[in-house]
Amino acid sequence: MSNGLVMVRRIRRTPYTDRLEQAGVKGFSVYNRMVLPKSFHMSVEEAYWHLREHVQIWDVSVQRQVEITGPDAARLVQWMTPRDLSKAEVGRCYYVPIVDDAGGMLNDPVLLKLEEDRFWLSIADSDLLLYVKGLIIGRGFDAMAFEPDVNPMDIQGPKAEALMVDLFGPAICELKFYRYMHVDFQGTRQIVARSGFSSVDGFEIYLDDSSLGPVLWDTVVEAGQKYNIAPGGPNQIDRIEGGLLGFGNEMTNENNPLEMGFGKFCRLDGSIDCIGLDALRRIDASGLRRTIRGVRFEGPQCPVCTTPWPVMAGEINVGQITSAVWSPGLRSNVGLSLIDRDHWEQGRPVTVLLPDGSKQEGTVQVLPFKSS
Amino acid sequence: MSNGLVMVRRIRRTPYTDRLEQAGVKGFSVYNRMVLPKSFHMSVEEAYWHLREHVQIWDVSVQRQVEITGPDAARLVQWMTPRDLSKAEVGRCYYVPIVDDAGGMLNDPVLLKLEEDRFWLSIADSDLLLYVKGLIIGRGFDAMAFEPDVNPMDIQGPKAEALMVDLFGPAICELKFYRYMHVDFQGTRQIVARSGFSSVDGFEIYLDDSSLGPVLWDTVVEAGQKYNIAPGGPNQIDRIEGGLLGFGNEMTNENNPLEMGFGKFCRLDGSIDCIGLDALRRIDASGLRRTIRGVRFEGPQCPVCTTPWPVMAGEINVGQITSAVWSPGLRSNVGLSLIDRDHWEQGRPVTVLLPDGSKQEGTVQVLPFKSS
Repeated sequence: MSNGLVMVRRIRRTPYTDRLEQAGVKGFSVYNRMVLPKSFHMSVEEAYWHLREHVQIWDVSVQRQVEITGPDAARLVQWMTPRDLSKAEVGRCYYVPIVDDAGGMLNDPVLLKLEEDRFWLSIADSDLLLYVKGLIIGRGFDAMAFEPDVNPMDIQGPKAEALMVDLFGPAICELKFYRYMHVDFQGTRQIVARSGFSSVDGFEIYLDDSSLGPVLWDTVVEAGQKYNIAPGGPNQIDRIEGGLLGFGNEMTNENNPLEMGFGKFCRLDGSIDCIGLDALRRIDASGLRRTIRGVRFEGPQCPVCTTPWPVMAGEINVGQITSAVWSPGLRSNVGLSLIDRDHWEQGRPVTVLLPDGSKQEGTVQVLPFKSS
Repeated sequence: MSNGLVMVRRIRRTPYTDRLEQAGVKGFSVYNRMVLPKSFHMSVEEAYWHLREHVQIWDVSVQRQVEITGPDAARLVQWMTPRDLSKAEVGRCYYVPIVDDAGGMLNDPVLLKLEEDRFWLSIADSDLLLYVKGLIIGRGFDAMAFEPDVNPMDIQGPKAEALMVDLFGPAICELKFYRYMHVDFQGTRQIVARSGFSSVDGFEIYLDDSSLGPVLWDTVVEAGQKYNIAPGGPNQIDRIEGGLLGFGNEMTNENNPLEMGFGKFCRLDGSIDCIGLDALRRIDASGLRRTIRGVRFEGPQCPVCTTPWPVMAGEINVGQITSAVWSPGLRSNVGLSLIDRDHWEQGRPVTVLLPDGSKQEGTVQVLPFKSS
């Protein structure tokens, strides 16, 4: 479903929005009160195949940064997440679930350790800055938090590396996944990480100066012509097939990181002090009641999932699908779902209740979905 | 400018969205990660005249509630705002600017005191719940904060009172502005306040049970037929003419409540302890550098303001317009703007720079705009 989005200042444009409009952007979502382009001249399926073969340029300015600096910055950041950051290194990125005192997810940002006492949290869709401000003011930390003028751009696809080498030199090839380095752009020092919200190779340029947005866009697009570059955005087919979870879609404050499959990022042995530790230990001790799974199901191409669809085993509701799409590679629908413990093993038969009242047979799948 | 809005679960539907679609909703905005209807079959101008003459039903579920309860709830709420709440009464609503330790606005909710230790903050467009959670966890308050299942509906317009009497009885007539009362709806106890985001009379029903959403909608629409009820939403012409400021539009974290005209809600004499008090006292002592004003300017109907428009006095930038619209009553464009001290008096001539490069002559106006 698609409806007219009324633009006002409150829904912020990005440094790249003018260029998106020139490139014929056809739809926006709103994320962190900012526009996120969703489609250009290609269909979602065409964009999916293009992403797997070529390279795309995405305006992901909506990944706002929460910068935390000061003598207590490292202590505050560790307190905010159950992930053990005691050995965290400058130059690396860390996926850090952020939970409240009940263990409920508040956001799932990527942490960039910039200096020993300076961090960026590259956030999902909630005002993590307000939470950090609350913690600083409440506890009296000697730290500052603010949103810097950083507007990330994603370069995603198998030809991303070649393009980035053309733009920033061969050192890019040495950059490993979830590491970042500095590059020169027009005499400014910018951060490039090997990361991105896709299942293919790619990079994120954390452009730290919005006035350079249009020229960065133009430079990348021009250099990308020989790699068949196209404008795009996070692709729903690629995301769901790859099992990439979206905050607000697959998880809300109702969910804990253990059931979302982030147990490996939760250090619960007491060696770190973090918010929600007691709650997470209780959840862990009692055993997971449900976990995140894929559901592959038949039928004609499913609609967009705007409200959760029940997943049934006979008469029993065993989960709900929160995102779904037709997978052209698997020739079936694929969805992401929290599935109850008694039904979460690979291959378990289930029935999906669609919003039009129809039912489709399906099976539970371990993520990521495997191409047939 | 209007573009396709792609719906996903992350952008939440409301209990009324099905009904809006049946009523032919033509456009949505996104507010607190939830859909806010913007237009139906009438133009903005037609809806404006209708609102001034009849009654409208608005889905303002996006005004999410932050419920704060517990022994420390009152102390926490007072700490969050410079408004003196020492004499706050159950049954009343209070407009409360929320500022951080630098005095910058974080939200501007309406506070409902439900009990001595139980409050709702009916919020503008930012995750105030995350800030409250941070304060509670950081300071160790004995309080809880959460988002209850409350989805406000506005009944606005000169015929709102008659309609509300038909629905809930004559006691509604006694309800004064910014007071609330309880009414019965289908055997449930619901809160109705005399308030709303318009410059005309109206009421807000804080429906506390989303399952009742569709039946409440149907009940109001049916009873409203004799008053020529129509579906609508906050009206840009009414809002700007009335000088109603929008968080995210007229004010951001860059702004303090004093310059936004909320000085009367800031008790700075030291009799209350609140976050940002020192910062606000410094700002107050040094004198305001700018304040909120209207700008009335000529020319053809202006476009929607998506990025601030400079307001000039000769070669000097003296402010920026953040929302603007053609006023059919005043036969000119009207905008909301922060205007520098040396130029803020009524009638001062200014020039507005529009995004297409054109300039329009105008004058500074004290708010609200006066009909000619």
